[in-house]
Amino acid sequence: MDPTDAQTACFEAGIKFGSLYHQFAGTPVSPASADSLARAMEEAIENQPHCESVTVDVLREELAAELAESAADYTELTGRFLDVEMVINYEGTEVRTRMDMQDGYPLMRVEDVRPDD
Amino acid sequence: MDPTDAQTACFEAGIKFGSLYHQFAGTPVSPASADSLARAMEEAIENQPHCESVTVDVLREELAAELAESAADYTELTGRFLDVEMVINYEGTEVRTRMDMQDGYPLMRVEDVRPDD
Amino acid sequence: MDPTDAQTACFEAGIKFGSLYHQFAGTPVSPASADSLARAMEEAIENQPHCESVTVDVLREELAAELAESAADYTELTGRFLDVEMVINYEGTEVRTRMDMQDGYPLMRVEDVRPDD
Amino acid sequence: MDPTDAQTACFEAGIKFGSLYHQFAGTPVSPASADSLARAMEEAIENQPHCESVTVDVLREELAAELAESAADYTELTGRFLDVEMVINYEGTEVRTRMDMQDGYPLMRVEDVRPDD
Repeated sequence: MDPTDAQTACFEAGIKFGSLYHQFAGTPVSPASADSLARAMEEAIENQPHCESVTVDVLREELAAELAESAADYTELTGRFLDVEMVINYEGTEVRTRMDMQDGYPLMRVEDVRPDD
Repeated sequence: MDPTDAQTACFEAGIKFGSLYHQFAGTPVSPASADSLARAMEEAIENQPHCESVTVDVLREELAAELAESAADYTELTGRFLDVEMVINYEGTEVRTRMDMQDGYPLMRVEDVRPDD
Repeated sequence: MDPTDAQTACFEAGIKFGSLYHQFAGTPVSPASADSLARAMEEAIENQPHCESVTVDVLREELAAELAESAADYTELTGRFLDVEMVINYEGTEVRTRMDMQDGYPLMRVEDVRPDD
Repeated sequence: MDPTDAQTACFEAGIKFGSLYHQFAGTPVSPASADSLARAMEEAIENQPHCESVTVDVLREELAAELAESAADYTELTGRFLDVEMVINYEGTEVRTRMDMQDGYPLMRVEDVRPDD
């Protein structure tokens, strides 16, 4: 069957998450550069269709803790350092999604689907 | 509302498409290296959860046509050179998705959602 | 033979250019998001060892011109939209490098190698 | 001063390493998909100018060991799982380079510069 608008909205939400993660994972990042990276991630993904808002938090405390254990000044961006929220709207269906750490893995998930009345 | 299984299946399908595109876009590619890249893309994304199959065609004829117009031996992978099909299965809901060129743009879309009987 | 310091400085400069290009090529970009992306690219690569400064200009006029020809609001970052300068210092040898468009291709090159006196 | 051919050869070698790493880091990888990814990396980077050969080993034993410690079937490609050799030739100067783990970090380095006689 063809997808419903709500299903397409969820598909679009997934595209944005996969894009955000695989475009920026691996970027050299430090506590000092965390904010500029977070802003660029937000504004880049907000360009994509049906994307209402993207909020990225690059977790400076987690970065600082990891760097304290090593001799390095920076590391590579990975899901362990990210907390992301996105709102997608497709033909009136609003989808709220989130990625954060759950049981040691970055978990992307749909938190709310709100179809038009 | 919480997502249905079919909505989650569509979300998962979108994640795979965004991942595939933004992980591999920009890769140096020529007609001779098109096949190894296509195989790697398929096997990489098939690792992701709920992903039943990925079929990637890197379009050698399109690559050859673009290179014939320039002095270059290779170019960067972009949607213009890709035809991709994916099958996702989440809790018994099967979602079939595709990306190919439509009106000059690479269009990712859900072609079929088949919930469990 | 083992590399000289000046040769290692040039190797390090090349690493930064390849990193910058292949990390960020493919990022969704518009005139409005060009600046945040440029700042993130600079600060990300400046994290890498021996990297004194990175200056990235994402060319808004070029972006606007390309978007005016199409129905799209954004495009993917590629070398056509970039002008980059980097200064690397390895053990006292300073290397100045640049990437910009030359004859239709983004050309990365070493402009100056200044060994220690 | 303008770079010598040997310095340019080292710059070109660095570009290939940065490209290889930041194009492919973050790719979903498992012991079963390690070989197709390694082949694609080799053939992709060999497209680039002045690149004579690229040999990539994606370390299946390291992957298997990491996966055995977790509940996951796959992980993201990072330097810990890579051993790479490259030969660059620029105007007769041959440069041999390598990346492997040294003291817990992936180290990219020039092993040999052999100018023309």
